Amino acid sequence: MKKTTALAHANIALVKYWGKRDSRLNLPAVGSLSMTLKALSTTTSVEFQEGLSIDTLSINGSDAGEKQTRRASAFLDLIRKDAGIQHGAIIESVNNFPTGAGLASSASGFAALTVAAANAAGLDLSPTRLSELSRQGSGSAARSIFGGFVEMKLGEKADGSDSIAVPLHPAEHWPLAMLILITSEAEKPIGSTEGMNLTAETSPYYPAWVDTSPDDIAIAREAIVARDIEKLGEISEFSCFKMHGLAMSANPAIIYWNGLSVTLIHEVRRLRAQGIPAYVTMDAGPQVKVLTLPEYVEKLTGLLSEIKGIRQIISTELGGDARILPE
Amino acid sequence: MKKTTALAHANIALVKYWGKRDSRLNLPAVGSLSMTLKALSTTTSVEFQEGLSIDTLSINGSDAGEKQTRRASAFLDLIRKDAGIQHGAIIESVNNFPTGAGLASSASGFAALTVAAANAAGLDLSPTRLSELSRQGSGSAARSIFGGFVEMKLGEKADGSDSIAVPLHPAEHWPLAMLILITSEAEKPIGSTEGMNLTAETSPYYPAWVDTSPDDIAIAREAIVARDIEKLGEISEFSCFKMHGLAMSANPAIIYWNGLSVTLIHEVRRLRAQGIPAYVTMDAGPQVKVLTLPEYVEKLTGLLSEIKGIRQIISTELGGDARILPE
Repeated sequence: MKKTTALAHANIALVKYWGKRDSRLNLPAVGSLSMTLKALSTTTSVEFQEGLSIDTLSINGSDAGEKQTRRASAFLDLIRKDAGIQHGAIIESVNNFPTGAGLASSASGFAALTVAAANAAGLDLSPTRLSELSRQGSGSAARSIFGGFVEMKLGEKADGSDSIAVPLHPAEHWPLAMLILITSEAEKPIGSTEGMNLTAETSPYYPAWVDTSPDDIAIAREAIVARDIEKLGEISEFSCFKMHGLAMSANPAIIYWNGLSVTLIHEVRRLRAQGIPAYVTMDAGPQVKVLTLPEYVEKLTGLLSEIKGIRQIISTELGGDARILPE
Repeated sequence: MKKTTALAHANIALVKYWGKRDSRLNLPAVGSLSMTLKALSTTTSVEFQEGLSIDTLSINGSDAGEKQTRRASAFLDLIRKDAGIQHGAIIESVNNFPTGAGLASSASGFAALTVAAANAAGLDLSPTRLSELSRQGSGSAARSIFGGFVEMKLGEKADGSDSIAVPLHPAEHWPLAMLILITSEAEKPIGSTEGMNLTAETSPYYPAWVDTSPDDIAIAREAIVARDIEKLGEISEFSCFKMHGLAMSANPAIIYWNGLSVTLIHEVRRLRAQGIPAYVTMDAGPQVKVLTLPEYVEKLTGLLSEIKGIRQIISTELGGDARILPE
């Protein structure tokens, strides 16, 4: 069988995903809205080989550990089932962003794996079906199938077939920029899935979090249509801090921030008060992402790099769809 | 008329107060549970003088500003009404904790003012009535009338007469200790009252915060009866982070922490994982308070003082009732 290589970009949710309504199918409890990030991508090649009984996975040129390999294998079983094959696969995955930069690679990783594996298995799937499959590898991977601005639909069906990402606007609609400030390369104290489960089980705020998410998505959608950075930035910060406030209200409290994260949050808000369009968003980790307009990237980078302790600043514009690379 | 001097201690809520159900009478939306802090106190003298038409207020030997003087005056009007007098008063107030240490002095300040002014006006009031009066000066002042462990009752009556603090146990019941880590002397970006109002108006979590508070108080009460530091510490952290998570979910987000606050939160939790009984609590500001047992104060102080940037560490045990000082 042929070897296929695919590339997918990372993405960041502006209206956040936190909570699952079904663990087995990895169905979200809330929808989300993201932008795809050009500067961060994963390139993955997959080759199914007759007679191979196991899957092998290398990440950035090294053999992946047992846990990651098992997770990829379980995911490939979905593809094998669809394709009616039973061969093991050789998977080679490379992230273009520094390993250990504290950036989650599961979104771009599972999106690239889905596109490469489906093609390598001889399947000709729609982007929607690719998105539905990706979701079962990693919730945020469903969004990385598409470029530009993407909405992950909550869906209603028990089988998850309507829990899919849909493209809202391509990158060209509104060229936004994002700065990614790496504050730490340490592993996070509690992973997203575990954090989501603890939150759902113990936080008194969880029902209100789930109930108010659709309003945030509607506002973000309007802001993107109108290319209104203030409106999009404000709803993004609201959703971000609502998510982190939610995690903090779990018992025991989940705090993904470090000291530098908070220093940067205050600094971005201070610069905004001075007229620079800059808005914070953060995922389940200590890195601080700053939504801004392209014409402010240089100035913001200069101002923020004065703060001690930042390991690295990555600046990015919006990226495109996940795609198969030519041989 | 005679001059009276009174002393009251600051207190810290372990189960937090956040939100008002009546602004004019300053009635809380939730009850709270606190410990009174021996090391922090305010000493206030009040003398009503016939013929004096205005009140004058000095704090730590300097004339207070117009805003603070007006607030004290409005409060003295309650005392004057009860006593049937109309004289202006000379108020002299001294905090024993460093001014600008970023520690709220309103609790000890209004409690001392209440006790001194009532006595100077010739009123002989019960502690309960003193607590009810204090509350109208500052919500947390109601608790500073009593020593040891104190519960602020939510109350039900529209006139606020049952929104009062009650003493649970004197300091001798369970000698706990607290470390107060001063991280910044900067003024907080948004005061408590304004922050509470913004939270009530904009946070989707506010109803759940109000609804779940009685359970936290019940658990803390049990923990104190049983002298169970783990139980008291865990419910205190839960209430603290639930309050800060609530404030973060306001729109725009209210973040009282600075970078050092978060570094210290993680450090305290790390030390606890190593077996030291230490639990974080924080009010509407960046200072980090650590609940612990007296036998760990020295060790904890040593370990925490290694972290760069802490301005000061104050250690305290539980304090007693607010009281009139002999001439």
